Amino acid sequence: MTAPGPKGVAILGSTGSIGTTTLELVSRFPERFNVVALAAGRNVALLKEQIERFRPSLVSVADPADAAALASALGDSVPRVVHGADGLIAVATAPGTEVLVSALVGAVGLAPTLAAVEAGIDVGLANKESMVVAGELIGRRAAECGSLVLPIDSEHNAIFQALKGWNRDHVAKIVLTASGGPFLGHSAAQLETVTPAEALAHPTWDMGDKISIDSATLMNKGLEVIEARWFFDADPGEIDVIVHPQSIVHSMVRYRDGSVVALLAIPDMTIPVGYAISYPDVLDLGYLPQLDLARVGSLTFFEPDIQRFPCLALAFQALDAGGTMPAVANAANEIAVERFLAGDMGFTDIPATIAATMRAHEPAPYRSLEDVLAADRWARQYAAAASAKRATA
Amino acid sequence: MTAPGPKGVAILGSTGSIGTTTLELVSRFPERFNVVALAAGRNVALLKEQIERFRPSLVSVADPADAAALASALGDSVPRVVHGADGLIAVATAPGTEVLVSALVGAVGLAPTLAAVEAGIDVGLANKESMVVAGELIGRRAAECGSLVLPIDSEHNAIFQALKGWNRDHVAKIVLTASGGPFLGHSAAQLETVTPAEALAHPTWDMGDKISIDSATLMNKGLEVIEARWFFDADPGEIDVIVHPQSIVHSMVRYRDGSVVALLAIPDMTIPVGYAISYPDVLDLGYLPQLDLARVGSLTFFEPDIQRFPCLALAFQALDAGGTMPAVANAANEIAVERFLAGDMGFTDIPATIAATMRAHEPAPYRSLEDVLAADRWARQYAAAASAKRATA
Repeated sequence: MTAPGPKGVAILGSTGSIGTTTLELVSRFPERFNVVALAAGRNVALLKEQIERFRPSLVSVADPADAAALASALGDSVPRVVHGADGLIAVATAPGTEVLVSALVGAVGLAPTLAAVEAGIDVGLANKESMVVAGELIGRRAAECGSLVLPIDSEHNAIFQALKGWNRDHVAKIVLTASGGPFLGHSAAQLETVTPAEALAHPTWDMGDKISIDSATLMNKGLEVIEARWFFDADPGEIDVIVHPQSIVHSMVRYRDGSVVALLAIPDMTIPVGYAISYPDVLDLGYLPQLDLARVGSLTFFEPDIQRFPCLALAFQALDAGGTMPAVANAANEIAVERFLAGDMGFTDIPATIAATMRAHEPAPYRSLEDVLAADRWARQYAAAASAKRATA
Repeated sequence: MTAPGPKGVAILGSTGSIGTTTLELVSRFPERFNVVALAAGRNVALLKEQIERFRPSLVSVADPADAAALASALGDSVPRVVHGADGLIAVATAPGTEVLVSALVGAVGLAPTLAAVEAGIDVGLANKESMVVAGELIGRRAAECGSLVLPIDSEHNAIFQALKGWNRDHVAKIVLTASGGPFLGHSAAQLETVTPAEALAHPTWDMGDKISIDSATLMNKGLEVIEARWFFDADPGEIDVIVHPQSIVHSMVRYRDGSVVALLAIPDMTIPVGYAISYPDVLDLGYLPQLDLARVGSLTFFEPDIQRFPCLALAFQALDAGGTMPAVANAANEIAVERFLAGDMGFTDIPATIAATMRAHEPAPYRSLEDVLAADRWARQYAAAASAKRATA
């Protein structure tokens, strides 16, 4: 018997935080992983470095001009360079891919993720919008096409681990932990005036701008509640959120005998990324700093305040409304965050914009990706108009 | 297909804390459990109540006179009444027993536990001395005889659960939590003068006197380290102890990727007892108070101080010495705790007595229960003499 060759890895979002973390792991474990395909957005300089280092056979960038320039710079040799939405799908389903790390930010990650699932490729999913917008569809197609969708979000990864070896019927509650974001102790009045710069200064995680704002509004946790519903086939009433500022307990599962299984680790995405790409094996990451609870000293917990952070309640409402409503809430949030980051409106206008868009939407069951994408487009237009009104108010 | 009948349960130590907890569960779930046999010590009045309520077919008490009086009071009907060491073995191996709850305190629990194991009966093990004194033997015989030995100690039960579904080869560290006992903040000088009454006032767990003193000296945790070595086939270097005064995190397992799986629950032995007797099913204990982390607020952790609490270091030394040494350390501790509780010597004389007995012992490999029991007897005599000298010093 010969040892199996390295596992073929493709990455959507290779120049982002999860993408670079994945490539670090590939560097550490060259005998285990082989980079097949990479998709980046506009950071072509970093992608070029990644190409030289990891030698994928296919790469994609957002813009056709960037693609042409990159292809010209690389010469006739590999990789093939593609671009745009089709480019993402080509990377997600590149021949030789055994696991796709789906780490684009926003609804743009949805179509290529679904394409990989339908090609029977296992997916390490960091793009939360895929599950938020079309979790039912992805879950169903994964089961039909023999794709395993493994969560990379530290919270869902923790729940996945806390469920391992247990009977799903014995679960009483799935408990997502939330850092609470940088404005945990702010009053409602203080929240009115916070700036994008303040919102981007997250206490424990290093992450992208969009996710940082979502963390500050708690919409991040709201989207995770919706994801958990589909990842773990959980009723909304089975899901709880608890604030835990240290981000050491990544989430928990309570069983019907009162036992709670918690997954703790240092806040470093290397661990869930490694778990997802090496599953069912577990990588030896002894080179990372180890969790030292005596040094951490104290782990604290409290109930989230949905009066000051209404995004969390909006997410539960979207889940209860069902059908296209989670997609609409997600799309409205994306637009609102863009406007806030651009300085066009205030922090508390984010939940107001989501709420206004949700009020204007009549949720409907959906059967195809096109159905939800239509709802997504409508919500973006509506939210943009609502935001513009707020900006000029 | 008919549903399986209730599971036959026998209990060693039915009038103690674990025994009464087990019987409470039997009352709650009469369709699942059936009491086959009960062994008590000297609390014949409570045993008589238990007989009337649960109708076992066999009972045992410590003393022959108690046995005769009980048999006479019960008349000719069931149960049969036996006594002494043979009585314990008869209860542990009573026909119809599918799970034995082994909850005697001290080395007296060893022989009947081994008898059940050798009869192929599953054992819920709360008698920590069985594993401390003869863990290697019990582990080997359990494998040979098809008996599953499930820990009831909250710490080992937590570890058992935290290992479920994982590959044992991926374990980096088994981390036992310790409440730290009532003297956690005491200085070395203060420890010299503490009284038995102070030592018996444990902050979170309601338990017997012997275990309360062991908790105060940290010998309880030392014995658990030795148990963990055999329950989980762990090298001593794989086992860590961390102080966690709230007793909410019952123990943890760290895996080689840095993920730590922790088992949390309210400090109520109903949960591990229920887990052990219903395994692999999980009882619905929704009637218990639920763990409310927001209400607990804060979980704290720090390193144990083995200067002030040398029993923990002595236990690691006993494990390193191997063979009969853990049995000797355990026996010396039992004698020393008796003397302390009787007011014959001080709190810090407990570790001094254990250390003196260990220094006087040349550890040897053991092959049979008789070998370790001989070491146990020797250690009791030696420790008694050493204690007497201290008491008169």
